[in-house]
Amino acid sequence: MHIMTIDRAALADLARGAAFLGSGGGGDPYYGQLVGEAELARGVRFELTTLDALPDDALVVPCGWIGAPTVSVEKLPNGSEVIAGLRRLEEIMGRRVDAVLPIEIGGGNGLAPLAAAAHLGVPIVDADGMGRAFPESQMAIFNIRGLSACPSVLTAACGALTVIETPNNMTHERIARSLAVALGGIAHMVEYPLSGRQAKDHAIRGSVSAAIAVGAAIRTARTSGEDPFEALFAALRRSGLYPFAGVLFDGKIVDLERETRDGFSVGRVVIESFEAGGRMELIFQNENLLARRDGAVCAMVPDLITVMDRETADSITTERLKYGQRVKVVGAAAPAMLREERALALVGPEAFGFTDAYVPIEDLNGWKTA
Amino acid sequence: MHIMTIDRAALADLARGAAFLGSGGGGDPYYGQLVGEAELARGVRFELTTLDALPDDALVVPCGWIGAPTVSVEKLPNGSEVIAGLRRLEEIMGRRVDAVLPIEIGGGNGLAPLAAAAHLGVPIVDADGMGRAFPESQMAIFNIRGLSACPSVLTAACGALTVIETPNNMTHERIARSLAVALGGIAHMVEYPLSGRQAKDHAIRGSVSAAIAVGAAIRTARTSGEDPFEALFAALRRSGLYPFAGVLFDGKIVDLERETRDGFSVGRVVIESFEAGGRMELIFQNENLLARRDGAVCAMVPDLITVMDRETADSITTERLKYGQRVKVVGAAAPAMLREERALALVGPEAFGFTDAYVPIEDLNGWKTA
Repeated sequence: MHIMTIDRAALADLARGAAFLGSGGGGDPYYGQLVGEAELARGVRFELTTLDALPDDALVVPCGWIGAPTVSVEKLPNGSEVIAGLRRLEEIMGRRVDAVLPIEIGGGNGLAPLAAAAHLGVPIVDADGMGRAFPESQMAIFNIRGLSACPSVLTAACGALTVIETPNNMTHERIARSLAVALGGIAHMVEYPLSGRQAKDHAIRGSVSAAIAVGAAIRTARTSGEDPFEALFAALRRSGLYPFAGVLFDGKIVDLERETRDGFSVGRVVIESFEAGGRMELIFQNENLLARRDGAVCAMVPDLITVMDRETADSITTERLKYGQRVKVVGAAAPAMLREERALALVGPEAFGFTDAYVPIEDLNGWKTA
Repeated sequence: MHIMTIDRAALADLARGAAFLGSGGGGDPYYGQLVGEAELARGVRFELTTLDALPDDALVVPCGWIGAPTVSVEKLPNGSEVIAGLRRLEEIMGRRVDAVLPIEIGGGNGLAPLAAAAHLGVPIVDADGMGRAFPESQMAIFNIRGLSACPSVLTAACGALTVIETPNNMTHERIARSLAVALGGIAHMVEYPLSGRQAKDHAIRGSVSAAIAVGAAIRTARTSGEDPFEALFAALRRSGLYPFAGVLFDGKIVDLERETRDGFSVGRVVIESFEAGGRMELIFQNENLLARRDGAVCAMVPDLITVMDRETADSITTERLKYGQRVKVVGAAAPAMLREERALALVGPEAFGFTDAYVPIEDLNGWKTA
């Protein structure tokens, strides 16, 4: 079923919402927004459609960028990576792609399918593979549910193209990551090619329209003078995907360590309260993974942790964090599919090397009503 | 034209000769020899044929392993890498492979096409892409002569397969190297797929039969009580490819630094003369690249520098070097195609970061007659 046509306003809302859902990662959506605007200007229509509109035997392909977000804002794509990858995948599969979706709704990757949709003339499916952003390919719900990442096609700005085939999705991530590093730190990848049936059974439903709604709520609140944070929380709850949300901390960035290592942006940021004594520390690997408030964990992956400008409610991706920024740290409950036991094994805190067992953000913060 | 059938004795000679021609690199040929013996035992015939027997439109494919030789002796192949890569290349090219050759005659890579020849039922061409061994893919004569490395197919023991396409052969090396590292330090690659015409115009002619002749000369001298080193030098000269050869140094290994870094075995070895004072230092990156005798350069890449057991004339590849080994360091002039100006730009000492300009080994050592 056709949901909507993504016009220029919806595109801006999508960028704003995806930035929030990235939990700090997925890359700054600004580039993707510009690409989308350019396509709209030349008359392209972006159609957003439901998962259930897909025939079971459709070929549905997740798109996304792999690498360090710090690199993505300095080294721009050449513009043909997405199409080159999809065209090659079509050759390999011996058929046309029927629809595209973001491998992750968070950050710039939430907008990655726009170029593909424009050039292939296919709809974007209202779903994604992560319900947020995660740093590694095997953290996609499609791996959690036992699907293969391959064949995948990785393309880079220099024109290099590699086809990857391996039965092991962890090996796939390792291969893709080292290729991204070898090719300058960022590359595009089409991976986990899905049948329509697989997409319907396993993709995270409604996340693209949720991102648009989240972005719209913030925009509307700003113009009407409402509190954009309250509008955001209401939109998250209304989406059905993110049933709890709230402010975890309010303060000023007083310390920041960030490096680009092994194809990731990794580091930590410390935020001090404007009142005496309060302190929050966030640990990130592309995405914010764990928040400690006055030494105690108050949010952990896969729940969302996003740093936002405390006045405008603009989301600040991890590569844009700066000393002195005045921010609110916002948390939100992850989609239920990411909280299943089989999911937590791959995207819970222990999968990232933390010793803390996962506790839902609403329990850690005493948030009551969904 | 059919040259010979490689039987068990010729196979051992090939392994022995390739070890010498590797200039310390290309990997220990022992594994390749075992593979060849196993194929012979199940009735396979290895046919060695001339370049000129190839039709101009034949598909001729170089085979070889990429990675650090230190890893290759610890992490064995699964046995299907070569075939998997060639079969995929056949799919990509839409036709069968007509013949195979070693990407480099040196070391274990001189034997890499055996498995391919056995399983595809195609001949091995009496030629290779380096006339020795070099550490990096773009050092092949095919890159020197302006041919493309792609499409290439890299396969690993874990079953992973990647197809690489890039217009830039340096990027191709960077991609392949990081894949080899990501896949455990060693992988197989079919690259620089050639037409028969291209192979005839650019491959280094006669290097497989030269390796066999070199190996046979050492073997014969051992059994007849001749000096195996003199027999080796005579065989090298007779080949027409390596017109000068001689002993650069005779002594004992007294210092060895070797590490596996960025997909290479890199280091230096110091050899002291049995007489007072003499000292030789070799610098290697997979292959021995530069020899200094009492501080003065006496051999440099692309000329061959091979460390050999001073009693048996067994070649000692760089990953097999050990403190205390009693050795002769043997040098030989590189094939003429590697001494052209366009070749030296890619495989001369400056291409490896040395400040010394290339001087032929026969000039550095006052070797007179070819």
